[in-house]
Amino acid sequence: MILEKIQKENDIKELEPEELGPLAEEIREFLIEKISNTGGHLASNLGVVELTMALHLVFDLPDDKLIWDVGHQAYTHKLLTGRRAGFDDLRKYGGMSGFPKRKESDCDAFDTGHSSTSISAGLGYVAARDILGEEHHVVSIIGDGSMTGGMAYEALNNAARLKSNFIIVLNDNNMSISENVGGMSRYLNGLRTAEAYVGLKKGVEDTLMKIPVQGEKIVHQMKKTKSGLKQLIVPGMFFEDMGITYLGPVDGHDVRKLYKILNEAKRVDHAVLVHVLTKKGKGYEPAEKNPSRFHGTGPFVIETGEAKSSGGKDSYTDVFSKVLCDIGRHDEKVTAITAAMAGGTGLDRFQKYFPDRFFDVGIAEEHALTFAAGLAAGGMKPVVALYSSFLQRAYDQTIHDICLQKLPVVLAVDRAGLVGSDGETHQGLFDLSFLSTIPNMTVMSPKNRWEMADMVRFAVDFGYPVALRYPRGEAYEGLKEFREKLQYGRSEILYEEEDIAIFFVGHMASIAEKVRIRLKDIGYSCSLVNARFVKPLDQDVLEQLAAEHELFVTIEENVLTGGYGEQVLEYVSRARLGVHMLNIGIPDDYVEHGNVDVLRREVGLDEETIVKQIITEYLTIRKE
Amino acid sequence: MILEKIQKENDIKELEPEELGPLAEEIREFLIEKISNTGGHLASNLGVVELTMALHLVFDLPDDKLIWDVGHQAYTHKLLTGRRAGFDDLRKYGGMSGFPKRKESDCDAFDTGHSSTSISAGLGYVAARDILGEEHHVVSIIGDGSMTGGMAYEALNNAARLKSNFIIVLNDNNMSISENVGGMSRYLNGLRTAEAYVGLKKGVEDTLMKIPVQGEKIVHQMKKTKSGLKQLIVPGMFFEDMGITYLGPVDGHDVRKLYKILNEAKRVDHAVLVHVLTKKGKGYEPAEKNPSRFHGTGPFVIETGEAKSSGGKDSYTDVFSKVLCDIGRHDEKVTAITAAMAGGTGLDRFQKYFPDRFFDVGIAEEHALTFAAGLAAGGMKPVVALYSSFLQRAYDQTIHDICLQKLPVVLAVDRAGLVGSDGETHQGLFDLSFLSTIPNMTVMSPKNRWEMADMVRFAVDFGYPVALRYPRGEAYEGLKEFREKLQYGRSEILYEEEDIAIFFVGHMASIAEKVRIRLKDIGYSCSLVNARFVKPLDQDVLEQLAAEHELFVTIEENVLTGGYGEQVLEYVSRARLGVHMLNIGIPDDYVEHGNVDVLRREVGLDEETIVKQIITEYLTIRKE
Repeated sequence: MILEKIQKENDIKELEPEELGPLAEEIREFLIEKISNTGGHLASNLGVVELTMALHLVFDLPDDKLIWDVGHQAYTHKLLTGRRAGFDDLRKYGGMSGFPKRKESDCDAFDTGHSSTSISAGLGYVAARDILGEEHHVVSIIGDGSMTGGMAYEALNNAARLKSNFIIVLNDNNMSISENVGGMSRYLNGLRTAEAYVGLKKGVEDTLMKIPVQGEKIVHQMKKTKSGLKQLIVPGMFFEDMGITYLGPVDGHDVRKLYKILNEAKRVDHAVLVHVLTKKGKGYEPAEKNPSRFHGTGPFVIETGEAKSSGGKDSYTDVFSKVLCDIGRHDEKVTAITAAMAGGTGLDRFQKYFPDRFFDVGIAEEHALTFAAGLAAGGMKPVVALYSSFLQRAYDQTIHDICLQKLPVVLAVDRAGLVGSDGETHQGLFDLSFLSTIPNMTVMSPKNRWEMADMVRFAVDFGYPVALRYPRGEAYEGLKEFREKLQYGRSEILYEEEDIAIFFVGHMASIAEKVRIRLKDIGYSCSLVNARFVKPLDQDVLEQLAAEHELFVTIEENVLTGGYGEQVLEYVSRARLGVHMLNIGIPDDYVEHGNVDVLRREVGLDEETIVKQIITEYLTIRKE
Repeated sequence: MILEKIQKENDIKELEPEELGPLAEEIREFLIEKISNTGGHLASNLGVVELTMALHLVFDLPDDKLIWDVGHQAYTHKLLTGRRAGFDDLRKYGGMSGFPKRKESDCDAFDTGHSSTSISAGLGYVAARDILGEEHHVVSIIGDGSMTGGMAYEALNNAARLKSNFIIVLNDNNMSISENVGGMSRYLNGLRTAEAYVGLKKGVEDTLMKIPVQGEKIVHQMKKTKSGLKQLIVPGMFFEDMGITYLGPVDGHDVRKLYKILNEAKRVDHAVLVHVLTKKGKGYEPAEKNPSRFHGTGPFVIETGEAKSSGGKDSYTDVFSKVLCDIGRHDEKVTAITAAMAGGTGLDRFQKYFPDRFFDVGIAEEHALTFAAGLAAGGMKPVVALYSSFLQRAYDQTIHDICLQKLPVVLAVDRAGLVGSDGETHQGLFDLSFLSTIPNMTVMSPKNRWEMADMVRFAVDFGYPVALRYPRGEAYEGLKEFREKLQYGRSEILYEEEDIAIFFVGHMASIAEKVRIRLKDIGYSCSLVNARFVKPLDQDVLEQLAAEHELFVTIEENVLTGGYGEQVLEYVSRARLGVHMLNIGIPDDYVEHGNVDVLRREVGLDEETIVKQIITEYLTIRKE
């Protein structure tokens, strides 16, 4: 096996040229085999096998810096830098991350996870290099999907001014997670078919110069204009006009050609963009046919591509998806917006039924929210579905464009709380805090699938800004018997007893319920309250329960700072309710990748730890 | 006076053509006169007088929607929609806002203040219009400065897909607040000089067609390529390639030409960009010569352009600016980054001395922070200076690119707290909360000018992510006698007595000091603590003071939710310190424009209100 010869970075350079083709084959087999067991990002990684090999052949790691945008395509890079063994524990707790991590290898120059950051980070490395008088190459590898993010453009705009080498590899598979959209995509498509231009370049020049009088006149006339002849004959002239040299397009599955063009790029004394055409899922038929399905996948059967576990119950996302379609049927003002996550957010269903009222704006959360604000100002009822960690990108737009004008935009905040194997960059642990800081915002979270459905309906008709946060995964089907009508700002008391009152937010329901039962079993009297609304806080329920309780416990899957618990504490203190408080949530640290249940144990959000904590706290109070 | 004929929207349409020139003159005189008294945005408004007139001549308000990007250029628009009287109280509390406000007029289609939102909002209006089957025009007016913001590009990328009319007016003065930078600017510059192309277009076509064999061959060859001949002869071909029709460039001070091109734009059945060339500060010589100085200005003497009040004492920004330069002289790793705010943040000084280590990235906060992260990863000590309300744009980058990797980036958070006359969109009232949610972040704020200097030095050498927040305006020169050496995470006790302890954050020092003196005067015993660090919280000082105090009061110019006070409360509760708490800060609402002292009274952050509140609270406690 050739792959066994690769024990660390730069080993690939020792291979014979004829071994490279077979190596690519072996890498593909390896990735398919491993990911079919562990799950992970498949299609994006299969697409960049040859590109990664070429990068490792041309550049010297770790001196040269490779920065992988998003980073879900760095598996081959990990393989070529001595991390083959890591694939057995890929994305498991304590195991190898699915993304580049500086702490994992010094060949990982920059941690990524969110989209469109690589050119900015690369430019930072370049500036540092130049100021410090160092000499190495910096390469940012960015997909055309990530190019729909505004940050990438902000960075390009700055790269254009560089006076030293910086290589941007545009990995163009004409896809983001799902099919790509928008003007830049169209522009790149133009370049994809630009081989005609290359022929044209030679043809036009030759032809023009052959024409004695007029030809020379035209060429002269063209050179007079600022960009002159270049405008006529260079593909990628937008990049060129900005000041970035454009090389390509080149076949991203031909190592030889890639090797050649990357070496050419090294010689440019400013920013250069290498346009590489790749096929997402390359070499594995099910992934080639359905790259979205194999963008991020659970374990699957290699022969068929079928998922190993079929899922079963509806996720919160499914419930959202179905209910929103139902509402959409009766209310033509309902519109749905996603930022390149139609499948992940369940909006693909809405898209199918109401294509005219569905908008996939690309990986562009900032635009998504202000676009929704515009829709609302224009009389619609927009629903923006995105992941909690990506909503962080649009904090300002929520403050400045939605809530300031009290526009009726619904934020459907999916993947809130611990998300699991994607790890630190993708956990949704801040939203309750940052959304609660915003005036005019309402924040709610459902305890189970039925309440999820009720909340979607409530939110769409609410008429003011509202965020509905819910986690990844199966919708809870417990506590079915409790379905008190939703009332603005009101919590729901599930069990009213005395001594201890547990207030939980959203999907902490199942754990809180078990905690209550455990406490009851050992003789504690315990009330259980479903917060429902994190903002505004239900002060009445706190007043009501204060009399008969000594300890209020809050449970939320969010950082403690600024979260639900601290808001409860603030009121308890301000209103002098005289109740002791115990706030349980995520401690002040990033939470790495791993199975969600494992992570909950690690951060102390599991039944066991919570029960112990409550008992300890309660006994301490009683002693005082 | 012709201006008097304009009592409300659309009145301008009743004027004779020959009255338009004099009207423009009158508007300029009016604006210069008024702003010389009230202060406000001058240069940007003088630049768009004719453009605004043309827009009002061509479109029907309020049915058609004009969306002003940033909105600091909407004064003529306000004049032409019946708000002339408002200019006497411009930007004063209760008076007219300096930005478009939906609640002020139904001719203001969308509230703005931050940059690069107008195309997104406009697209939302367009989508709503088309779904509802309405017929009106939507026009977003955006400066070339705002085009450096990624959001604008995200929106353009989406506008490209439109199948109905949407007009983007690119107000190109080749400036943002200061001189514009980057590749897009270079690209637009190419278009500015594109009249050559227009000649070329005709020339090339004619010439080519005149050449019997070769010419036809070339044209044929060109048409075969995807974009064909268009590539050769159309200026703005990047926009065209994206799918957006490009019209212009047109002289932005020629109402007749503007009228014509805008009418042309109305007929396009998809997105169209009208490239308008304007001169910032047009018609007022001091502003033409120094448009940055007259971007936002205080009252000034019309004849000379000189400011009416000369400022006097150093601002916090001045202190930052000077100290950073001093550090920069001795440490070549220090680099400074601004997002189009070199003057406002005081980094223009650093730029002057260390041009190679200074980076103005354009209006691109997201990029600015990740670029800084890259610089830090590459071994530098980057300092990013921006305004608090704009840092909201880069919340995710702070979480995801800086703090996750613990990179030593200094965030110099200027204009924190109440900023005054710019109002709701510009107040910096959330930063303590959203920064405190982030793991690995340190947040501090200085009590006076000397501590500011110490903190800048501390931050640059800290080696981890750190945010230093300070307000607009004069640096406090009181409490000079207290200059205990800064220690990580430690507060500074200024006066230690008993009963009541006041903890203040940063520039609340002067008010807190006065409050303490007032309380002393009427017989209360009162300690005073300078928080210094909001994150991490100094738990020791809380423990230490708990024994001798009954009431802890916190004072901060930040929303209460998730702020310093709630963090103190959380520890007091968790550690069962048995002290009563009173948290004073900004209530859960937006704060409009006005003089900062007036605003403080409105929100209860003035000496008077605070003293009353403390006494009431203290008496209540004693009674219990």
